[in-house]
Amino acid sequence: MSAAAGTAFALHPQLAQDTVVIAELKLCRLLLSKDANYPWLLLVPRHPGVTEIIDLDTDAQAQLMTEIAEVSHALKETTRCDKLNVAALGNMVPQLHVHIIARRKSDAAWPRPVWGVAPTIAYGDNELTTLIDALRRKLGLDQKQ
Amino acid sequence: MSAAAGTAFALHPQLAQDTVVIAELKLCRLLLSKDANYPWLLLVPRHPGVTEIIDLDTDAQAQLMTEIAEVSHALKETTRCDKLNVAALGNMVPQLHVHIIARRKSDAAWPRPVWGVAPTIAYGDNELTTLIDALRRKLGLDQKQ
Repeated sequence: MSAAAGTAFALHPQLAQDTVVIAELKLCRLLLSKDANYPWLLLVPRHPGVTEIIDLDTDAQAQLMTEIAEVSHALKETTRCDKLNVAALGNMVPQLHVHIIARRKSDAAWPRPVWGVAPTIAYGDNELTTLIDALRRKLGLDQKQ
Repeated sequence: MSAAAGTAFALHPQLAQDTVVIAELKLCRLLLSKDANYPWLLLVPRHPGVTEIIDLDTDAQAQLMTEIAEVSHALKETTRCDKLNVAALGNMVPQLHVHIIARRKSDAAWPRPVWGVAPTIAYGDNELTTLIDALRRKLGLDQKQ
């Protein structure tokens, strides 16, 4: 949980605006999208200047997969979703970020991908806190971190 | 390049219809989408019954990342694309498949994701063969495989 690797890292302003921080994992900052349409997490490696997965060295690529799996398990167990969508696109925001989205067959975009489909819905404060707490418990993170 | 791990594996009919086979990698069958709008590859782990990345064991997850990186490098070097899009969605076709798509700022969907945007365009025979041969060379695969 050290932030040492991220000394020169700064989160892209668009990601900062659209998300809240859940945790610092070994490689990535874990974010939750403020869009309540879908439980929607993002992993952002704290390496400056990285756009593609293949811009990471192989150790960091392996760690990214480890964190994708950890976060996917936590999101699936927390939401009991029908499907996970995992994607690194970056056409709009170049800083490497991996979306991990819990999809339901009843959600606003199903079966389409989520991007650009439904207007953003805000979370209620309690709803947001409850979801973040549940995710942090599933991830085994100290509530006081 | 052994097919032993895939004895009980059968490619989903929709993927079989929409793609051509480029190669068998250690974990995955590597496919090329027949849609000439975008140079578009797919990696399908030859494990039956797998829907999510987290349905794979951790060794297979690590190998999937290795193959995503190998194929991403080959696709980027072959196409000189502006951006790679890497995604495991599976809302329509449940069999786990990872899209690796070469995006250009001039393509039919930019900057949106590609799914459901532009009508499929067929490759010319020579165009398809040239692309496949170039990708196979970049991947270090025997042309006669």
